[in-house]
Amino acid sequence: MIIVKNVYLNGQTVDVLIKGNRFEKIGTGIKEDEAQVMDASGKAILPTFCNMHTHASMMFLRGVGEDLALFDWLQKEIWPREAKLTPEAIYYFSKFAILEMIRTGTTAFLDMYFYPEASIKAVDEMGVRSVLTYCGMDNFDEAKTKKEIENAEKFLSLKMPSQKVQKGLSCHAVYTVSEKLIKTFKQMARDEGLLFNMHLSETKKEVEDCLAKYGKRPGKLLSDWNVLDEKTILAHSVHLDDEEIRLIKKAKSVVVNNPISNLKLNSGQMPLQRYSDEGLRVTLGTDGVASNNNLSMIDEMKVAALSAKSKADDCLAAKVGSIFEVATANGFEALGINAGKIKEGYLADFMLVDLNNFALIPCENLISNMVYAADSSCIKDVFCDGKCLMKNGHINGEEEIIRDFKRACKELH
Amino acid sequence: MIIVKNVYLNGQTVDVLIKGNRFEKIGTGIKEDEAQVMDASGKAILPTFCNMHTHASMMFLRGVGEDLALFDWLQKEIWPREAKLTPEAIYYFSKFAILEMIRTGTTAFLDMYFYPEASIKAVDEMGVRSVLTYCGMDNFDEAKTKKEIENAEKFLSLKMPSQKVQKGLSCHAVYTVSEKLIKTFKQMARDEGLLFNMHLSETKKEVEDCLAKYGKRPGKLLSDWNVLDEKTILAHSVHLDDEEIRLIKKAKSVVVNNPISNLKLNSGQMPLQRYSDEGLRVTLGTDGVASNNNLSMIDEMKVAALSAKSKADDCLAAKVGSIFEVATANGFEALGINAGKIKEGYLADFMLVDLNNFALIPCENLISNMVYAADSSCIKDVFCDGKCLMKNGHINGEEEIIRDFKRACKELH
Repeated sequence: MIIVKNVYLNGQTVDVLIKGNRFEKIGTGIKEDEAQVMDASGKAILPTFCNMHTHASMMFLRGVGEDLALFDWLQKEIWPREAKLTPEAIYYFSKFAILEMIRTGTTAFLDMYFYPEASIKAVDEMGVRSVLTYCGMDNFDEAKTKKEIENAEKFLSLKMPSQKVQKGLSCHAVYTVSEKLIKTFKQMARDEGLLFNMHLSETKKEVEDCLAKYGKRPGKLLSDWNVLDEKTILAHSVHLDDEEIRLIKKAKSVVVNNPISNLKLNSGQMPLQRYSDEGLRVTLGTDGVASNNNLSMIDEMKVAALSAKSKADDCLAAKVGSIFEVATANGFEALGINAGKIKEGYLADFMLVDLNNFALIPCENLISNMVYAADSSCIKDVFCDGKCLMKNGHINGEEEIIRDFKRACKELH
Repeated sequence: MIIVKNVYLNGQTVDVLIKGNRFEKIGTGIKEDEAQVMDASGKAILPTFCNMHTHASMMFLRGVGEDLALFDWLQKEIWPREAKLTPEAIYYFSKFAILEMIRTGTTAFLDMYFYPEASIKAVDEMGVRSVLTYCGMDNFDEAKTKKEIENAEKFLSLKMPSQKVQKGLSCHAVYTVSEKLIKTFKQMARDEGLLFNMHLSETKKEVEDCLAKYGKRPGKLLSDWNVLDEKTILAHSVHLDDEEIRLIKKAKSVVVNNPISNLKLNSGQMPLQRYSDEGLRVTLGTDGVASNNNLSMIDEMKVAALSAKSKADDCLAAKVGSIFEVATANGFEALGINAGKIKEGYLADFMLVDLNNFALIPCENLISNMVYAADSSCIKDVFCDGKCLMKNGHINGEEEIIRDFKRACKELH
């Protein structure tokens, strides 16, 4: 048991009692003889972030080939490095990615990248939550389809080390994956009660190509293929028409806003406010660092708000309260994790922010400060599932994680 | 004399000798018996930022009335507080603003707010550079015009404590200031060789109202009034037509990109890449915290790049090298300060960033990392004019500055 003493929560100073992995009691003057007491005077307690779309291990590509034209970037910089990837490298890259997530207040992420089996140990050791997905991409080659299904079966047979690490399946996108593989993966996920994840309508070109090939838009296509349900997560979802919005809403599928990546690659801007108004389940993600170039959900919230106001042509769109919820509670809800709120009974995923950090002063509106003014220097302590992952800015083993990451990067050159 | 030893600069490890307030020598194995040696192993040296448009003392308005409709915001939250402003409050607010600037790597700013005379001492004590301007706003009231001219004369008669603190004049905007006051202030500035600063074409409404009132657009109006020259700084400059771009270019006036504020208030997006291609002198600024909500030029660079790519409809627009230059060298050049580059003979305004900070790893492209991945936690040391303002994350007197700021905020409630 832990008591977080004298912590600022919604305008009051309270004590928070954590029993096991949950918030047991929130109130004043809480006493428990057996509890470890942590004085949090001058700090506020907030839920941590849930990063709903990333390729965590892409850390080795941060800044690589920046501002090159797409094909040069892929051919000269990205593909040669990715070709050398090994499960061992992915393990080190994942650990470093999670280090950055912890420093920026994230304790859960939905991931899609190579060798997800190698990330399992990294997630477990770092103590965060993740849904790791095997990502299918057959490029419409039937031999590859078969191989991908085998790979997925193998991945799904793996035993996970704890409840915090979950499995899921992804298909890359409608322009890289066959109907057969998409339908099969979704059915496999459905059979096991797992999440299914895809990139959807990231660019106008994707929509145009899909119309040319299938005679319908990507969202309509997935609906007709019976892929949409409440366990389907659709990254990007920038270019949806009215019908697709209706279909996704009806199916209760989840869309993920990735505003920084969408702007950086000039893919377009999600109409976040409209989707929220229409009742879509909207969440937030950073995408991989190659198109961001960090995993900070704080940066992502700021750009999400700015981009949504611009897209809605309304400076009152995307209010700070809703943006913060999109980045926290909405994500956890989408992953089926009972976290994202500082509330009795919820899982104890939380951060303590320093109210004497310059960016949080004055504290007229803490949530506004978090969305628009904060950065990682505000975050002092991070807990996941009741366990402390960062204490007063210190993460155990950080130097080693960085050293191993740098070495693994060198080996890809 | 100071030797910054073993510091990373453009892919090499060098020593940097600072003599007085300038970079004397950059090379390897520099020895000077009398010099103080500062080991900078594991750190990189970069120029500091120049924030070309802000209202620094607005710090007390951070998060105040967030997401209220404009009129409610002004009438219920902003104006009642601003009405209580005193020179003493401005002094404390300025100091706190400069604290945030130092922590985020800025050593020079162009300011426009109430009681600029009260900021002089703050700038001097904090050790940064500033052009503080008296800002005229007569609302087309002749009595007020006269009073504003008197106020400006009084401000211009003040003695500045050092070369680092400079005077200038501002007029708020064409929709709040009379022709007479704009022309008079510009002439007064010209007579003294000082900078003249205005908001220009921030919103479409400003342009439409100007067309309705004067039969021409704001930039054309200023040109016809002989206000444009190389010492005129035009904040925002979002909505310029071809003729205005040509006139501003010909006059060598400076435009300031404020992408976060422009998106937050839904004013529009400056076509940064086009302005650069046309040869305009483009710089970067945060605007005040009420519409940002911080003074971080790192945040501003990231959003500037993202916004410019979107506006240009080209993901190869606004490359990291040019964005970094806009935020550093271009600003100093516009203020007539020989800084913004790590180069022999230049003024020693610089920062040391921690190459072991998660956001700067890997270091494939340090400038890309600074534009897209960094935050204040990367910045360890900040120097201005050869003097250390922040040493390994420590700023002298920080606690007192924060305490005084909080107290002064309370007095406005």
